[in-house]
Amino acid sequence: MLNVQLFAITGIPVVKRNDDVGELIVAAVEKQRLKIEDGDVLAVAQTVISRAEGEVVDLRTIRPSHRAVEIAKKIDKDPRMVEVILQQSSEIVRLGHVIITRTKHGFVCANAGVDSSNVEDEHVTLLPSDPDASAARIRETIKKRLGVDIAVIITDTQGRPFRCGCVGLAIGVAGMKPLADMRGRRDLYGKELKVTVTCPADSLAAAAVMIMGESDEGTPAVLIKGAKYEKDKGSIREVIRAPELDLFR
Amino acid sequence: MLNVQLFAITGIPVVKRNDDVGELIVAAVEKQRLKIEDGDVLAVAQTVISRAEGEVVDLRTIRPSHRAVEIAKKIDKDPRMVEVILQQSSEIVRLGHVIITRTKHGFVCANAGVDSSNVEDEHVTLLPSDPDASAARIRETIKKRLGVDIAVIITDTQGRPFRCGCVGLAIGVAGMKPLADMRGRRDLYGKELKVTVTCPADSLAAAAVMIMGESDEGTPAVLIKGAKYEKDKGSIREVIRAPELDLFR
Repeated sequence: MLNVQLFAITGIPVVKRNDDVGELIVAAVEKQRLKIEDGDVLAVAQTVISRAEGEVVDLRTIRPSHRAVEIAKKIDKDPRMVEVILQQSSEIVRLGHVIITRTKHGFVCANAGVDSSNVEDEHVTLLPSDPDASAARIRETIKKRLGVDIAVIITDTQGRPFRCGCVGLAIGVAGMKPLADMRGRRDLYGKELKVTVTCPADSLAAAAVMIMGESDEGTPAVLIKGAKYEKDKGSIREVIRAPELDLFR
Repeated sequence: MLNVQLFAITGIPVVKRNDDVGELIVAAVEKQRLKIEDGDVLAVAQTVISRAEGEVVDLRTIRPSHRAVEIAKKIDKDPRMVEVILQQSSEIVRLGHVIITRTKHGFVCANAGVDSSNVEDEHVTLLPSDPDASAARIRETIKKRLGVDIAVIITDTQGRPFRCGCVGLAIGVAGMKPLADMRGRRDLYGKELKVTVTCPADSLAAAAVMIMGESDEGTPAVLIKGAKYEKDKGSIREVIRAPELDLFR
């Protein structure tokens, strides 16, 4: 019976700068008696990666530019926060009641992923600078310590243009192709499928993030068993829609 | 241990007009020895709903309007298909290499959800006209035949503006609130969460659709156990972003 299971990983302490997230996860699953096996997918929330990697900014050190001050007035936001958002972005995509930008990585999202949750007061986390590399490091630690070959997804929680509510998605991957090419597959009538490319990385991230948020104290990591994916040196860059195919710039 | 499981439901025959999808699912899970229990979530692909409800159009009966012919030239599509898409839409949102419209229901998606997969040649399926009601009927059948209280999600597979690859999402719900309000919940530092609203319906749909596509012959239904959701008379309309808050119209 085709069956996928998602397990919230418990007992991960509050992650601090220079912590080894892979090691913390190995320790947590051991205590939890949860076995990580070949083919599993490990989803890890970007906030813990950012905190471990020191991608944290003290807003008290930020002098907002004139542009940041103007924008901040418009959207009723802390101008220092807006300044950080602008620094993390290559362009503003939309400015309304929220600010949607294209981040340095190429992601289009609100606030460039800059987040004031789960970090000390007057501080914000940035998205990890190279989430694929962060995923790869965790994957290597798991391989080294537990001898198993898995995929790792770094997740973020984001809003969508046309639908309310935030949903998880992948901002970094290691050990899996984030997209699945269904070309050549046929439907019930033998016709070639119209939906030729799907995004398993985002599908798994959405489910994992939902579970991360469900437990009372929250958990930043979820283990997924039974998911099918293409084991490969994938990169999240494959998921970013090329600007010329982007109808909403 | 917080644990969510997804099961592909096997043995559902090719759905025909006037089939009772709820009954087909009851028969399938019985043969599969899969127990549907209180609190489960059942995800059902919209194509089988559409076929059962007769939301199928024979393209040979369609006379494309002048507008449809013009658009079809631009995007290299069958003008009869474009005519159907226009009929199913209240407005065109973007016209590029694909046509993005707002459907009669209010969903913004490519091709108004009109699909030529999994249906006879020269035919297309439309989105169900009232997916919440379709979900409610299946939910009632499950309640009546198995005596259990579940949530039902009708899923569709759609692309995203800024990311490649299609992902599942909910176009109808019954027995659950599609959004979860996290207001009042606090983060690790006691600060109120910034991400105040999430969309469990779409998160579950994304995972379910991934599993629907994974098995060789495909399956249009997935049973989800262990997911937390708010049992309520929810409607998918709650997920549709109000036009005045939509920055990408």
